[in-house]
Amino acid sequence: MLDESPNVTLDTVLADLNRALTAGDIEAAVALFQDDCYWRDLAAITWNLKTVEGKAQVRDMLTAQLGAVKPRDFGQQAGETATQSGDVTEGWIRFETETGRGVGQIRLKNGRIWTLLTALDELKGHEEPKGLRRPMGAEHGHDRNRRTWKEKREAEATELGYTTQPYVLVIGGGQGGIGLGARLRQLGVPTIIIDRHERPGDQWRKRYKSLCLHDPVWYDHLPYIPFPENWPVFTPKDKIGDWLEYYTKVMELNYWSSTTAKKAVWDEAAKEWVVTVDRAGKEVVLRPKQLVLATGMSGKANVPVIPGQDVFKGEQQHSSQHPGPDAYKGKKVVVIGSNNSAHDICAALWEGGADVTMLQRSSTHIVRSDSLMEIGLGGLYSEQAVANGVTTRKADLIFASLPYHIMHEWQIPLYKQMKERDAAFYRALEDRGFMLDWGADGSGLFMKYLRRGSGYYIDVGACDLVIDGSIKLVSGKQITRLSETGVVLDDGTELPADLVVYATGYGSMNGWAADLISQEVADRVGKVWGLGSDTPKDPGPWEGEQRNMWKPTQVENLWFHGGNLHQSRHYSQYLSLQLKARLEGVPTPVYGLQEVHHRS
Amino acid sequence: MLDESPNVTLDTVLADLNRALTAGDIEAAVALFQDDCYWRDLAAITWNLKTVEGKAQVRDMLTAQLGAVKPRDFGQQAGETATQSGDVTEGWIRFETETGRGVGQIRLKNGRIWTLLTALDELKGHEEPKGLRRPMGAEHGHDRNRRTWKEKREAEATELGYTTQPYVLVIGGGQGGIGLGARLRQLGVPTIIIDRHERPGDQWRKRYKSLCLHDPVWYDHLPYIPFPENWPVFTPKDKIGDWLEYYTKVMELNYWSSTTAKKAVWDEAAKEWVVTVDRAGKEVVLRPKQLVLATGMSGKANVPVIPGQDVFKGEQQHSSQHPGPDAYKGKKVVVIGSNNSAHDICAALWEGGADVTMLQRSSTHIVRSDSLMEIGLGGLYSEQAVANGVTTRKADLIFASLPYHIMHEWQIPLYKQMKERDAAFYRALEDRGFMLDWGADGSGLFMKYLRRGSGYYIDVGACDLVIDGSIKLVSGKQITRLSETGVVLDDGTELPADLVVYATGYGSMNGWAADLISQEVADRVGKVWGLGSDTPKDPGPWEGEQRNMWKPTQVENLWFHGGNLHQSRHYSQYLSLQLKARLEGVPTPVYGLQEVHHRS
Repeated sequence: MLDESPNVTLDTVLADLNRALTAGDIEAAVALFQDDCYWRDLAAITWNLKTVEGKAQVRDMLTAQLGAVKPRDFGQQAGETATQSGDVTEGWIRFETETGRGVGQIRLKNGRIWTLLTALDELKGHEEPKGLRRPMGAEHGHDRNRRTWKEKREAEATELGYTTQPYVLVIGGGQGGIGLGARLRQLGVPTIIIDRHERPGDQWRKRYKSLCLHDPVWYDHLPYIPFPENWPVFTPKDKIGDWLEYYTKVMELNYWSSTTAKKAVWDEAAKEWVVTVDRAGKEVVLRPKQLVLATGMSGKANVPVIPGQDVFKGEQQHSSQHPGPDAYKGKKVVVIGSNNSAHDICAALWEGGADVTMLQRSSTHIVRSDSLMEIGLGGLYSEQAVANGVTTRKADLIFASLPYHIMHEWQIPLYKQMKERDAAFYRALEDRGFMLDWGADGSGLFMKYLRRGSGYYIDVGACDLVIDGSIKLVSGKQITRLSETGVVLDDGTELPADLVVYATGYGSMNGWAADLISQEVADRVGKVWGLGSDTPKDPGPWEGEQRNMWKPTQVENLWFHGGNLHQSRHYSQYLSLQLKARLEGVPTPVYGLQEVHHRS
Repeated sequence: MLDESPNVTLDTVLADLNRALTAGDIEAAVALFQDDCYWRDLAAITWNLKTVEGKAQVRDMLTAQLGAVKPRDFGQQAGETATQSGDVTEGWIRFETETGRGVGQIRLKNGRIWTLLTALDELKGHEEPKGLRRPMGAEHGHDRNRRTWKEKREAEATELGYTTQPYVLVIGGGQGGIGLGARLRQLGVPTIIIDRHERPGDQWRKRYKSLCLHDPVWYDHLPYIPFPENWPVFTPKDKIGDWLEYYTKVMELNYWSSTTAKKAVWDEAAKEWVVTVDRAGKEVVLRPKQLVLATGMSGKANVPVIPGQDVFKGEQQHSSQHPGPDAYKGKKVVVIGSNNSAHDICAALWEGGADVTMLQRSSTHIVRSDSLMEIGLGGLYSEQAVANGVTTRKADLIFASLPYHIMHEWQIPLYKQMKERDAAFYRALEDRGFMLDWGADGSGLFMKYLRRGSGYYIDVGACDLVIDGSIKLVSGKQITRLSETGVVLDDGTELPADLVVYATGYGSMNGWAADLISQEVADRVGKVWGLGSDTPKDPGPWEGEQRNMWKPTQVENLWFHGGNLHQSRHYSQYLSLQLKARLEGVPTPVYGLQEVHHRS
């Protein structure tokens, strides 16, 4: 074994795996895995997003799925070469099932499978019309009933939702709904996306003036049309807003602006949703078979209830409503919270000439943007990564190949590095009284994001303003009440304020289902997001995947989609394929449907 | 020599070339070329688009340019491998000059240089902000005078043309002006593009309804943002219109819609143009240093003067004004002309239920779209080419590397193949009386395009309608006059008509300069387009490049830009670098400025 090239080692294991699977010999397949093993499947074999951990779970999954799904023909991807590092052999794979084709990544330890990623890539007979399959556009020949592209688009836009019904209704037209809508369009799934704003991209445009994406361009591409090579590293909000708007038009999405969903009811007899929407003041009733809530992690504002909110004579805004600093020059502002939005808003207010105080109620994880880019993301999402051949597609799959159960082990050393590199910076923040943390186990930003979606700031400059006192910091104190003129703290001091900004985050996504459908349905779905890591704001038991995201829920035909641009891009592929399979009647036996442990 | 690998052969020649050029030993450099040789330079060494042919011209060019431009460091491009086919060795090169970096392609025959392409790629110290140089977007840190991206864009849009002046004014905002504008923006050259239509893309939207691009998607990409892989092969007109509109916004072009240029005058004292424009009804006077006419080969309509045009009681339209068939159901239409637009319009009219007659006055070159795609373009611009590693960039450079003087030798065999493949089709057309040709020397469509820009139809279905008589054909007859009710031919017959469409093409581009500036300036520029091949509509003497296109003209600071999407994309790079060099005061000694032989 030790003398073999990594390619031979990997080819041998894949051949053994094929033999075992084809013969239905589950024990022989399980024997190829090491005890400490992880098989992550994205809709290819489990028709779920599911990680099975350890041999017993691998056995259980194969016992359930092998007969129906028939995974087979595992091999290395053409043009790729396995690599060896220490006792780990890595490679890129492709495979087939009865109904689909998949890709993935594999790591062997001493010749046995340690991690295996299998991801559905396309459905047989329902491949996307791209490359060799792209549409002709012009219809050559002659036809007296010919309709032009424009006429057909206009007819579709007029009819869909009125005389014809969408198969999928996506509620929420931010990057999540748009990316998913683009994939569904390419798969030929009739879809309407509705959004309450006037224009696509307003979700970004209407936020505070200085907002830019905190993730870099290599991480943020949408499906099908990557940003050009002159695109800024950190996109300003209006620019990403414009991009999204043009994207919806170029990708020919049926995007209903100025539209809000009022009520959704499941019609059990017809097996479809009945969704009443207000489209620019007119009521329309839609009957989609599938309902996707893409209203976003950052959708439903979380505003704390504080005594005296009715007494306070100044303005109060949730961070999502804050228009930026222009109107607050010379005014006193208290920003409650100390995560990303709080920092951004404080810095912009200071720049705008306001007298601004940040009220930190609990510790925050801070990383400097350049350190995060270099140490945290650089290997996968950077100009260097692109130069090394790590395309966005590859980076997404590599990231997906790291099982959530052990992902923190990869992350902790990176954050140790950042902590050392920026030690003086962190000391200065603590000297000012700022309460820092590095996540429950020191695993830093990505794990905090995946577990709870909050609790951090990527520093792009505001910390220096905290350190030098330009942004006043009050930390470790709680709010007792609002007075007529300010915020009263538990030590009796009062912070005078003309404006109070609640940078207090957002609720769980099943709250949207409660509003739109019913509390009963929201409870049946349960908490959305989090891994079950049993760390703050991510209660156990261990789930091993993001709860309820991009996969079947306990409520039939109800789906949740969202996350950052990276997740929206990557996971929209699996969600779109799950929906397409259901439209076409492709069998989708779901393995390991998650149980509900928490209502929100 | 014969035993060497192609890489060694090529490396040896390039090393010898470097040695000769660095030593200023022109004879040693010339000795590396074979007698029958071509050196095509795109703004890298000649600051012109220029092909020198034979050793004497190579010697003359080097004598003029070597001292000032200092070309050097020729080598093979990293990651590329020279190839050998028969006695020809081919390879991809890169090199430098005193002020720039270039790329190119080389062919050796028996170890001596047969064809050499040198193309300017970037100016030292003025590289585009892309890849590692891309802008940050977010400005990290803090600044009380910070302006957001949106505020800066809005300020620029408000000021440019009023309180600040553009360095370049581009007249005409079709794909040519837009692609050039995008490149100039990336190079930091203050530019305004003006266009008479209400919206970018209207140049396409407003043409006849069934229009689609006749060139396939791989040939049509714009700079920076390629079409996605699901884009149709032949883009419908409204779809390309929309793409162009969104492109101008995403690329942040200063694009003035609903704007027409009234008058341009050269101010010799200030060394700038004084251009009076009408912007949505208000007069604005612009003072750019450089004026680019990008009004297009298909810009100024060519309407024949025919006795009785004032008598005819029906409608008369140039093809560029024809709105499509909708209003002409059951009407009698005579379309004068038999090239691309004539065929498209006739087919759409027939589909729309009109009674349509095509009047062919002289022979036309016909190729079937699928044959052209497969045989004519497939090697460079196709899904297969992309799969073979021939990116658009490479395809452009390969096409550019074929010297115009011998390009027809590559083309003739391809058209022979098409003629054989579609023999039955051509016979059927001739049986119907259609007059066919294959270009003066049988070299087909591209050469016709490069020489005269007219005289062909790429068949996407209309020919079948001619063959089966659905489109009535009258050929070989001339028009005597229009009567009140129709078109009277030289044999005395009359074709009754409710509508006459003049699908009679477009004039030479210097006509635009006559209208906008003066006849004197238009005459100083001379004919625009054509190679000087001494074939119909392309009078000699031999020029070896497209006359006056994308390169200095006899009128200082006046430039012409245009062509199909391929040319607009590729040549806009060299034109933008020539303009940028002038803005920055980089020396641009022009070699071989073309002489004027024809006024139009």
